[in-house]
Amino acid sequence: MVGPSRFMTVLSCFELGIVDALRDRPGLTATELGDTVGAKPDAVQQLLHLLVKEGFVARDEELGTYRLDALAGVAESDLRRALAYMNMIKVVALRQLFYLTESTRTGTIVGLKELYGVDEGTLYGAVADHADLRDAWANLMNTVTANIDPWFFANVDIPAGAKVLDLAGNTGLGAIHTYRHKASPGLHVTTFDLPEKENEALENFRTHGVAEHCSFIGGDVFDGVPEGFDIVLIKHFLDMFDKDDVFRILKGVNASLEVGGQVNIMVPVYPEDITDTDNYNVDFFPAFFIGCAMGQGGPQQLSVYQSWLEECGFKVTKAVTKAPSEIPPDVIPVQAILSATKVA
Amino acid sequence: MVGPSRFMTVLSCFELGIVDALRDRPGLTATELGDTVGAKPDAVQQLLHLLVKEGFVARDEELGTYRLDALAGVAESDLRRALAYMNMIKVVALRQLFYLTESTRTGTIVGLKELYGVDEGTLYGAVADHADLRDAWANLMNTVTANIDPWFFANVDIPAGAKVLDLAGNTGLGAIHTYRHKASPGLHVTTFDLPEKENEALENFRTHGVAEHCSFIGGDVFDGVPEGFDIVLIKHFLDMFDKDDVFRILKGVNASLEVGGQVNIMVPVYPEDITDTDNYNVDFFPAFFIGCAMGQGGPQQLSVYQSWLEECGFKVTKAVTKAPSEIPPDVIPVQAILSATKVA
Repeated sequence: MVGPSRFMTVLSCFELGIVDALRDRPGLTATELGDTVGAKPDAVQQLLHLLVKEGFVARDEELGTYRLDALAGVAESDLRRALAYMNMIKVVALRQLFYLTESTRTGTIVGLKELYGVDEGTLYGAVADHADLRDAWANLMNTVTANIDPWFFANVDIPAGAKVLDLAGNTGLGAIHTYRHKASPGLHVTTFDLPEKENEALENFRTHGVAEHCSFIGGDVFDGVPEGFDIVLIKHFLDMFDKDDVFRILKGVNASLEVGGQVNIMVPVYPEDITDTDNYNVDFFPAFFIGCAMGQGGPQQLSVYQSWLEECGFKVTKAVTKAPSEIPPDVIPVQAILSATKVA
Repeated sequence: MVGPSRFMTVLSCFELGIVDALRDRPGLTATELGDTVGAKPDAVQQLLHLLVKEGFVARDEELGTYRLDALAGVAESDLRRALAYMNMIKVVALRQLFYLTESTRTGTIVGLKELYGVDEGTLYGAVADHADLRDAWANLMNTVTANIDPWFFANVDIPAGAKVLDLAGNTGLGAIHTYRHKASPGLHVTTFDLPEKENEALENFRTHGVAEHCSFIGGDVFDGVPEGFDIVLIKHFLDMFDKDDVFRILKGVNASLEVGGQVNIMVPVYPEDITDTDNYNVDFFPAFFIGCAMGQGGPQQLSVYQSWLEECGFKVTKAVTKAPSEIPPDVIPVQAILSATKVA
């Protein structure tokens, strides 16, 4: 019940600069903090109560001064990542969630319509037109990709000289990462996404010096998947869709491959035991995908993806979930990799 | 970080009618629930994950069916009260909190301006013009008042025949309750509030048959408090203001009373130990008052209100906080009563 107010109270203490001020000068009073950040001391003291309660900040009752407590021990890089997450949730989700019920009923993102006038489409379309959404989203996704792609490529097998298709590969970052992590003579990676991404993708290939190893095919995955590839990568994509669309994607990929061809999937998964209290994926993703991003979708359990792959004509050869111990506590998605081979 | 999405996921399961459907017919599948509430089964299953995680709802993995678990044991009246709270937070706070940082900086409610075009003033003014705010707010406040007023009147002393002033008494409900709970020969209760409340207050006095025992004085507490009263009641009011305005109110009341005159205050308070994890007042009220209701304010600790009363010329004769065991777990405010006498 106090979830929204807790969230914004903590985030506002960062946004106002209270945390930075206390890092620079421990022992400030509410009055001094108010002067520093441009707010009334009464309000500073009110907002800091929660940070004192949580042990993030300590208050000296005698002197009426504040200093960082647990927050003093958090590395700058960890804090920046956590704040990127919180800012994304604030900008992309907080107000939009007001309309979650209507979004669920209609399968559309009512919040994007009410707040941004976006009549149809998804968050991923809306970010092109709205800088605040784009900044919040891109800032987070770049952090996420940088953190998770090395793990993905360490866990998938891409034979020398393979022809790889990066499905829904956006503007080519996945293809570039593939070439960087798995370079071999003859390796060629093709980004497959909507035609309007082509120019930016080709520019990215040139900028990163991989233009001769990477290319782009424009198209819509729901109209068919290009043929002639040994390996298809599907990263950060299946969780955006309901079961019927996931099946259309997997069957399309299956149809595009020869027998023996492989698919490597990276996707966040729910824990097999949904009641796992240390895992916050079901606390976030259903509301996020249905109410803020897609009007549908959401991750599944690893076992569900395994059975869906088998139903779509694959044999699963690998199914591994990232260990909780390797995931910083402020990162919500628990990613998994599924590798599978097309069977006859 | 997942506070906003947890909040709306749970509330949407109620708003969609999923909980009601499961109460009527335990053992429905996601497909049957989707048909019943008018949503896609995939979305129903996604949202229900969190309720399963929390033990509110149980899922039979074999059959893929759902039934109420902990929610089955919650009395209808408790559930209605909790939902009144959640709806209030959704309508009055969720989107508005997006602007908490700007509200803190400006001391105005930026969310009301952005979302409702309310340029100045408070939530309490905005409810007059906006039915959605009014309904969510009134629905909750009526529940709160009905639950808390009996406790207040059981704990304050109002001598027979006293002349009582109900400060910021709105449209007379507090005066009516005072007469009902403390009736005595000659007891007279006067509601003091802005002049525009007079007609509705007088109508309420007539409707409740207390017109000869209750009256109304129009005015602004910050311009002075009417004289000639033995006792002043201040309920649900001091927590709306920063310290300087609380002092103006208390000093105004003090100036209006003869020596020996009394003030009885009911106000939510923060726990003396701010780090008390069972108490959610600092999780909610700072963000609520600063970002959604007033652009300032918030409760204080009981000891703070005691010292403020003493500084304003009173001797505190009673200071009592409602026992946590008497407060339902879904009710956030922990109320306190302070009684004090004007000293020479």
